[in-house]
Amino acid sequence: MIVIGELINTSREGLEEAVKNRDVEFIQDLAKKQEEAGADYIDVNCGTLIKEEVEAMEWLVNTVQEVVDVPLCIDSPNPKALEVGLEAHEGKALVNSITAEEERFAETLEILKEHDARVVALVMDDDGMPNGAEDRIRVGKKLIEDLMKAGIAEGDIFVDPIIQPIGTDQAVGEHILDAVEEITREYEEVHITCGLSNISHGLPQRQLLNRTFVTLAMSRGLDSAIIDPLDPKIMALVTAAETLLGNDQYCAGYIKAAKSGKLDV
Amino acid sequence: MIVIGELINTSREGLEEAVKNRDVEFIQDLAKKQEEAGADYIDVNCGTLIKEEVEAMEWLVNTVQEVVDVPLCIDSPNPKALEVGLEAHEGKALVNSITAEEERFAETLEILKEHDARVVALVMDDDGMPNGAEDRIRVGKKLIEDLMKAGIAEGDIFVDPIIQPIGTDQAVGEHILDAVEEITREYEEVHITCGLSNISHGLPQRQLLNRTFVTLAMSRGLDSAIIDPLDPKIMALVTAAETLLGNDQYCAGYIKAAKSGKLDV
Repeated sequence: MIVIGELINTSREGLEEAVKNRDVEFIQDLAKKQEEAGADYIDVNCGTLIKEEVEAMEWLVNTVQEVVDVPLCIDSPNPKALEVGLEAHEGKALVNSITAEEERFAETLEILKEHDARVVALVMDDDGMPNGAEDRIRVGKKLIEDLMKAGIAEGDIFVDPIIQPIGTDQAVGEHILDAVEEITREYEEVHITCGLSNISHGLPQRQLLNRTFVTLAMSRGLDSAIIDPLDPKIMALVTAAETLLGNDQYCAGYIKAAKSGKLDV
Repeated sequence: MIVIGELINTSREGLEEAVKNRDVEFIQDLAKKQEEAGADYIDVNCGTLIKEEVEAMEWLVNTVQEVVDVPLCIDSPNPKALEVGLEAHEGKALVNSITAEEERFAETLEILKEHDARVVALVMDDDGMPNGAEDRIRVGKKLIEDLMKAGIAEGDIFVDPIIQPIGTDQAVGEHILDAVEEITREYEEVHITCGLSNISHGLPQRQLLNRTFVTLAMSRGLDSAIIDPLDPKIMALVTAAETLLGNDQYCAGYIKAAKSGKLDV
């Protein structure tokens, strides 16, 4: 499981202030804690700052990379912010995200190629958000094919099936799971990732729905998620699921996590 | 999700004594609590009593049915105990279990037909326990076909893919999940059920593995499980998974469970 730690995002409480104030200690502490908890990427997103986003992104990448060894996920719909973030980044970053919208695809692709980055591909195009499983599969495949034609390696693509609220459409869970399964079956090296919190929008006990959904999706091929690695309940479920899905030789990772008290949830 | 409450089983601590002493209050309390917690069937198993099993089964069925409205799961490999249990049972019971072992299949089938019972079909035959996904699918399909030929309705069959420890074979989880998916795909009305605790045999934090596995299996078609309905953590995951899989119109079951505090885990 490729865990993308989601906590450094200015839409989260207290984060916009910390980034505006260039609070190095606060940001570095949050980055280190996520790495220690098992994050494989540290996401950095300062999209709420709008006009200051580009400078803030450069500062975030430099500040976080000073204290962690894992690569970063440069998270913005703004190609300028992605470019500046990738310039500052050392090693192979993940970009979140590209879409099948014609203009955004072209602009983002150029930046990806220049910096040899991996990329999250959101299954939306100029017609907007996906509707149903078929739509997700169609746009997902188009993105994979177009990215590969442009020279991006299959294993560098992370398809995001776009999570929508189960509270407004009870079929959306199955649609997403079917899309995850189909894309995984057709492209063995492609990764599937997603943010989870939209699934529970408007419902009570949101964390329960979010962590249950990541488990359901792992059973169908999801192998990455943008989550809070400091949430012991979601991390315990992910660890157990990895073991049960055969991705943990001799159950060594599970036993180690249990011994360190991480599974005591 | 068809929940089979597993707590009335003489292999569990204190139960053998309670059944030997014919402790009506203890057994009825355990039955009522499971029904209140959402069990669709109350399993009764007194297999450890061996020579007294048949009389004990008759007593258990009568004692439990006095206080619950849900049907029982008559649980024994012994056809005599099944027969006596079904004689005492009012309404349509579930029998656990039949296998593809030639003699056991014939004996149990006769009893099933006489009492119009539903049945758990364990995927083992005269060659013993299943090995891998293919074996589970082969024996599962044979059981379904043979039961249907004998007049058992497709929707009265609950295939049990037989859970084995992930600690001794890291591939066993995927084998079981693949078998669940394949059997579900081919037989839409057949149910899939299983006991869970074997999956975690020999590993720490067993409940975490058990409840994670039920979620993974629900994503692939499992629609029943033999579990402890008084365990709030497994019940919360099952409730959330049902909602996320589209089996809970308007999320009404989920919202009701949340309001009653059942999801506060």
